[in-house]
Amino acid sequence: MYCVIMAGGSGTRFWPMSRQAQPKQLLKIIGDQTMLQITVDRLSKCKKTEAVYISTRKDLNTVIKKEIKGVLPKNIIAEPSGKNTAPCIGLSALHISKIDNEAVMGIFPADHLIVGHRAFEKALNHASKVAVEREALVTIGIQPTFPSTAYGYIQYDPDKKVDKLDAYPVRTFAEKPHLNTAKRFIKSKDFLWNAGIFIWKIDVFLEELGQHMPELSEQLQKIRKRIKSRKSFADIWTEIVPESIDYGLLEKTKNIYVIKSDFRWNDLGSWNAVYDVLPKRKDGNLVKGGGVVIDGNNNFIQNNDHFTAVVGLDNVVVISTEDATLVVNKDNVEDVRKAVDFLIEKERQDLL
Amino acid sequence: MYCVIMAGGSGTRFWPMSRQAQPKQLLKIIGDQTMLQITVDRLSKCKKTEAVYISTRKDLNTVIKKEIKGVLPKNIIAEPSGKNTAPCIGLSALHISKIDNEAVMGIFPADHLIVGHRAFEKALNHASKVAVEREALVTIGIQPTFPSTAYGYIQYDPDKKVDKLDAYPVRTFAEKPHLNTAKRFIKSKDFLWNAGIFIWKIDVFLEELGQHMPELSEQLQKIRKRIKSRKSFADIWTEIVPESIDYGLLEKTKNIYVIKSDFRWNDLGSWNAVYDVLPKRKDGNLVKGGGVVIDGNNNFIQNNDHFTAVVGLDNVVVISTEDATLVVNKDNVEDVRKAVDFLIEKERQDLL
Repeated sequence: MYCVIMAGGSGTRFWPMSRQAQPKQLLKIIGDQTMLQITVDRLSKCKKTEAVYISTRKDLNTVIKKEIKGVLPKNIIAEPSGKNTAPCIGLSALHISKIDNEAVMGIFPADHLIVGHRAFEKALNHASKVAVEREALVTIGIQPTFPSTAYGYIQYDPDKKVDKLDAYPVRTFAEKPHLNTAKRFIKSKDFLWNAGIFIWKIDVFLEELGQHMPELSEQLQKIRKRIKSRKSFADIWTEIVPESIDYGLLEKTKNIYVIKSDFRWNDLGSWNAVYDVLPKRKDGNLVKGGGVVIDGNNNFIQNNDHFTAVVGLDNVVVISTEDATLVVNKDNVEDVRKAVDFLIEKERQDLL
Repeated sequence: MYCVIMAGGSGTRFWPMSRQAQPKQLLKIIGDQTMLQITVDRLSKCKKTEAVYISTRKDLNTVIKKEIKGVLPKNIIAEPSGKNTAPCIGLSALHISKIDNEAVMGIFPADHLIVGHRAFEKALNHASKVAVEREALVTIGIQPTFPSTAYGYIQYDPDKKVDKLDAYPVRTFAEKPHLNTAKRFIKSKDFLWNAGIFIWKIDVFLEELGQHMPELSEQLQKIRKRIKSRKSFADIWTEIVPESIDYGLLEKTKNIYVIKSDFRWNDLGSWNAVYDVLPKRKDGNLVKGGGVVIDGNNNFIQNNDHFTAVVGLDNVVVISTEDATLVVNKDNVEDVRKAVDFLIEKERQDLL
């Protein structure tokens, strides 16, 4: 099995810590290591080094080669530009198909938190088995523990369970729901969290792509030839329409299964998510770096030795870097991107 | 008339901008000049340079000599250490009495906002006249415009008005009141704001000090001899018990008058006060430096090019320096000193 870590995201939701040249996957958000390194290490525990790939943006190629240990330089796939997940996965599939067109490949986000290695490894093997035996696309679903409005959901068909393989056909993918919808999802018991991990045989995937994304499929065929003859494919890549794998393929195909897993998972999609997974004091305050909270509860202070005092406030996130500070109500963490939009409009490249 | 600007305060309420080595009076809080420079310039408009003095802490002597224009170096009086206002004014009186023991001296805070120069100058002349003709201590009271809970008040006796001089005997001094008390003060119409400006003849003041603060008076006599013979008085100064002029003298003497003035005045006693006096946008947000407010009203951002984004919050003050950030609810600005106390306890000299 070949593993591809998708590490091309920009992570504006972690501004001011995340920047264009240092997106979320290259930040030490929850510990002493970058999210990408943690992800590499997780996969290296159960796969050979030769089998672990990173797919990323061209401009992050150098920094990833320099900073990330345990991945072969030739296994870092650089996209000429970001085109969302479908072209990214397509390009990775081309690279791996050169070695073995019938190999199983797994796709992994670079920046999610996963706790419970045994359950994770078990899920990979389980999904791999389903992918091979069913010649199908397979996703890993996480048993939800609360009605999250921050995650996407997968609805499965409990009546069509493949008993022998302990797998379910996927009925629908659902975007981040409102709270009431999320509560309904949990109640109905046939919804799982979408962990963004996909497993399939390369030939099966490329076949599916040909059916549901014929234009991309054709472009990839041309790129395959260019790669073979060691020519640039930048001109073809430029023409590709950005599309997510979810929207472009997974939501359209009928040949997709989900397996249930129960490793602890969090997509760390916002500062709130980081606050949620880290240990806090009794008063709910969390100070990573220098700081103090006076008369306040459930605040999250993070910085790299930029002392921060929060006085008389609750439920506030305060993130400081050398040149910028974000102060955001926990109810509004999704709006951090609006601050980034402001900086884009003002052409403040120094802060982006 | 000799003017003494009291510039020895530490101004912890303006942390993180104010530091031990750069207290409020040396900050450019409301414009392009330091509060102390603004105060010097105000007095220089109506008094000779020779008549303007600054009283300050020894450790601020050098920086004040370097940064403040328009004051003679010999007119900067350095206290060996801070002993609150009574010893400070006493020491200043000794210095000026060497020139003229019957001169009128005025005492001025270094860091208040005053708008309306004509009314200010008129008040000085008026107070000076009362001080000379009555041989009394005189304070300037500001006609209140709202029930402030941030200012001290002076209650005068309307029945004993000295018509000829348009002056009133002081009945009581009242500390910062609670809101209901402040409202009562305003309603009763015989309360004025205490602007902390005092005017009196030096001989009258020293006589009053002898009566109400005999210990300090005696210590000052000894210091006078040391100064005369150009010897250090640090040993005597060390023994002095810190005391405010309000508590030590003004609240005890019967020989004190207040005159009413109506220049626009604000003690700039907190970040809220600064916010109040500066022009704001329609949504109530005030950004001094780099920053943006997303979905919020009545916020105050101040920094020196440390970009600050406030998202989804109202009524918050965010002050950033190179090494620290303060985030405080406007209702809690008085508690900023608790953050400073925390830093003292942690021996964070770098941030104090």
